[in-house]
Amino acid sequence: MLEKMFYPESVAVIGASADPRKLGHVVLRNIVEGGFKGKVYPINPKGGEILGLKVYKSVLEVPDEIDLAVIIVPAKLVPDVMEDLGKKGVKNAVIITGGFREAGNEELEEKVVEIARRYGIRIVGPNCQGINNTHHNFCASWPLITMKGKIAIASQSGTVAAALAEWSQRDGIGFSTFVSLGNKADVDEVDVINFFSEDKNTEVIALYIEGVRDGRKFMEAAKKSKKPIVVLKPGVTERGAKAVQSHTKSMAGRNEVFDAACKQSGVIRAENLEELYDFAKAFAYLKPFKGDRILIVTSSGGSGILAVDVLESNGVKVFEADEEIKSRLRDIVPPHGILDNPIDLTGDATAEMYLEVAKATHDLVDAFLLIFGDPIENAAEATAEIVKLGKTVVVAFLGGGEVERKEVEKMHSYGIPVFPTPERAAKVLVALKRWYECMR
Amino acid sequence: MLEKMFYPESVAVIGASADPRKLGHVVLRNIVEGGFKGKVYPINPKGGEILGLKVYKSVLEVPDEIDLAVIIVPAKLVPDVMEDLGKKGVKNAVIITGGFREAGNEELEEKVVEIARRYGIRIVGPNCQGINNTHHNFCASWPLITMKGKIAIASQSGTVAAALAEWSQRDGIGFSTFVSLGNKADVDEVDVINFFSEDKNTEVIALYIEGVRDGRKFMEAAKKSKKPIVVLKPGVTERGAKAVQSHTKSMAGRNEVFDAACKQSGVIRAENLEELYDFAKAFAYLKPFKGDRILIVTSSGGSGILAVDVLESNGVKVFEADEEIKSRLRDIVPPHGILDNPIDLTGDATAEMYLEVAKATHDLVDAFLLIFGDPIENAAEATAEIVKLGKTVVVAFLGGGEVERKEVEKMHSYGIPVFPTPERAAKVLVALKRWYECMR
Repeated sequence: MLEKMFYPESVAVIGASADPRKLGHVVLRNIVEGGFKGKVYPINPKGGEILGLKVYKSVLEVPDEIDLAVIIVPAKLVPDVMEDLGKKGVKNAVIITGGFREAGNEELEEKVVEIARRYGIRIVGPNCQGINNTHHNFCASWPLITMKGKIAIASQSGTVAAALAEWSQRDGIGFSTFVSLGNKADVDEVDVINFFSEDKNTEVIALYIEGVRDGRKFMEAAKKSKKPIVVLKPGVTERGAKAVQSHTKSMAGRNEVFDAACKQSGVIRAENLEELYDFAKAFAYLKPFKGDRILIVTSSGGSGILAVDVLESNGVKVFEADEEIKSRLRDIVPPHGILDNPIDLTGDATAEMYLEVAKATHDLVDAFLLIFGDPIENAAEATAEIVKLGKTVVVAFLGGGEVERKEVEKMHSYGIPVFPTPERAAKVLVALKRWYECMR
Repeated sequence: MLEKMFYPESVAVIGASADPRKLGHVVLRNIVEGGFKGKVYPINPKGGEILGLKVYKSVLEVPDEIDLAVIIVPAKLVPDVMEDLGKKGVKNAVIITGGFREAGNEELEEKVVEIARRYGIRIVGPNCQGINNTHHNFCASWPLITMKGKIAIASQSGTVAAALAEWSQRDGIGFSTFVSLGNKADVDEVDVINFFSEDKNTEVIALYIEGVRDGRKFMEAAKKSKKPIVVLKPGVTERGAKAVQSHTKSMAGRNEVFDAACKQSGVIRAENLEELYDFAKAFAYLKPFKGDRILIVTSSGGSGILAVDVLESNGVKVFEADEEIKSRLRDIVPPHGILDNPIDLTGDATAEMYLEVAKATHDLVDAFLLIFGDPIENAAEATAEIVKLGKTVVVAFLGGGEVERKEVEKMHSYGIPVFPTPERAAKVLVALKRWYECMR
């Protein structure tokens, strides 16, 4: 139902500006420079031309159908704009403009919502950072990011969404769609879960929300979702909940209640911003696994232990290598290495050793945690081979200097997510395992 | 007493090799290319020349005094090398070679230690990654990192040390000295604490240790230390402790006992590798603070809340802005912002606003947490001004794209540490505050 919100064929930018410093210019430019293939109609009562496009004085003057309006006019003008959209038959609006409920202007926001309901217009926002659907080359937001990926990002915080987007770009994995929910006057977490659950370009939904409007609906949508959902929800402390109230007027609700709801409906909860990103990245590319035989293979003994601590203290047992595994690995692990779990290949480790270990043991394990703790050349190629063995493979890479940068880049280009520390990789394994247990 | 270990005037590289793939070559080359100003004597029974340096067949042939020997010969040859060092009067040795206690060869290690004791030779290692004292242009390790900084890194894991070193380089803050402790046959955590406590180039000691040899001595050294100590010690779970035993034959000991010892002796304990780095970076540049009035100033409401949750759930109260603060800030904070703590300047925030907020309130607060959650130009210059007001200033920067990269680089060059998420910055504040409380 939100199809045209996220995949419009034609878009009006209301409040388009010729001034490059203004948001009304930046958004229009990002739509154009992002390579949007649909029709673009800048709207400004001054008329004229911006970026080579004819400017219409009102949507009512536009000769064609408009799927989506992006609104960047002062708050007090928004109701009139909405009336025009209604008359024109536009069914989707992204209201970037702030100055509504978050600024104490509840009435103005209610007026806008009332008009939208009357005409059947869906709203993203107000007070938001827009939409960026990379697979549709449609960036009605900022900054302009075009890297296509699998993670859908929906956030009540523009900064949180921007940070996730930038990290995904830095990692070379990109995202599918970015939507800044702002005040959630209409479109909320339930709508986006329902939409992204069906979106062909999305594999995982990363949510930052400060409150849930309707707990029952949230749980229903989450349970029905065909894609894993990772959520970061602050306000876990009393003081944090109070800050939530000031920020987005959301009710943080009792943390234990939300936690229980997540567990019941298979939503993975992240503890912090980096974890939200890590988990989203993991679920976009890795399959959850059953069983609890995780074999850790490392070139760094210390890193292996850090991973063991995280797994065990999160309730995931690390099995001890039995004679069968030891006998299969005796000729692969260097003599000064460790023939247990973690398998310590020592600083003499080569990419081939990791591959040989995996080939020799994959029928006895449920998942691998590969820790590359040295400049190990061709780690990426070996890991790609290991992935083909069919087990879940989580990778951490650290302490590898230039070689690390090169190998991690390759792995990401192969669709193998890499995490920067053994602990973060271990937390990913915990999340993958928990998700499977919830889904049983 | 370890002065010549870390600041040698002359060094012998025993096992120097002409083969660029061999460690005996890499270490020699790093010493030379790192700009070491003392004398360098490659030692190899084959003689000849390496990297333009005359190779001696034995240390006994070297005509001058030798302060330090770096040993990279096969394990079984090390006792003979030690005998030669003893005869030559060399008092310090870094044994990079592995294949001792960690590989089950306890006897060989004991033999080496016995010879060292007999001649009064101090040993770093064996089974380690060497020493790198950037301030002495002395990199008897790998990779070659020359960026001078304030953090001393001492680690039982080469990978952990390398990761810290690389992160400090990436951040442009560098480190003072890096020492890989390996099997700790002689020099251990107590020795390095005592040494770095007096080292003029070190401001903080970052330790990764898997066990403490002598708890009482550790606590004494820590209490006496003139520099803050941050420690990451794994083996907190039973299974992790078992892995520690396999790795470095250390006794992890009971976690609660170590925790209590840290609290009593003012050692800051990090929960994971990134925290070890964050805390070290913080203590190198920031002063611990007393009092509990932390004012959070942010352009991102959501980020502010994430910080509040971390502070509060770690027992650090976030005060509510009183009328005095509100009245002072009313004309600075944008009308749609939030006049409470966190002060939310919204996406319209400018660097000047942060500075004005700080100037208006610094006499009423003990520390600032500045969160830049947008591409805020000149954030670095404003923060440098805020630092001059004399209060502890912790900075997080995220979601700022290219501007973020530029501003963070500037801040690090000004000696202002920046953390990548609000949560990590908040944990730093918790650590700074706890340290002050321990030290009272």
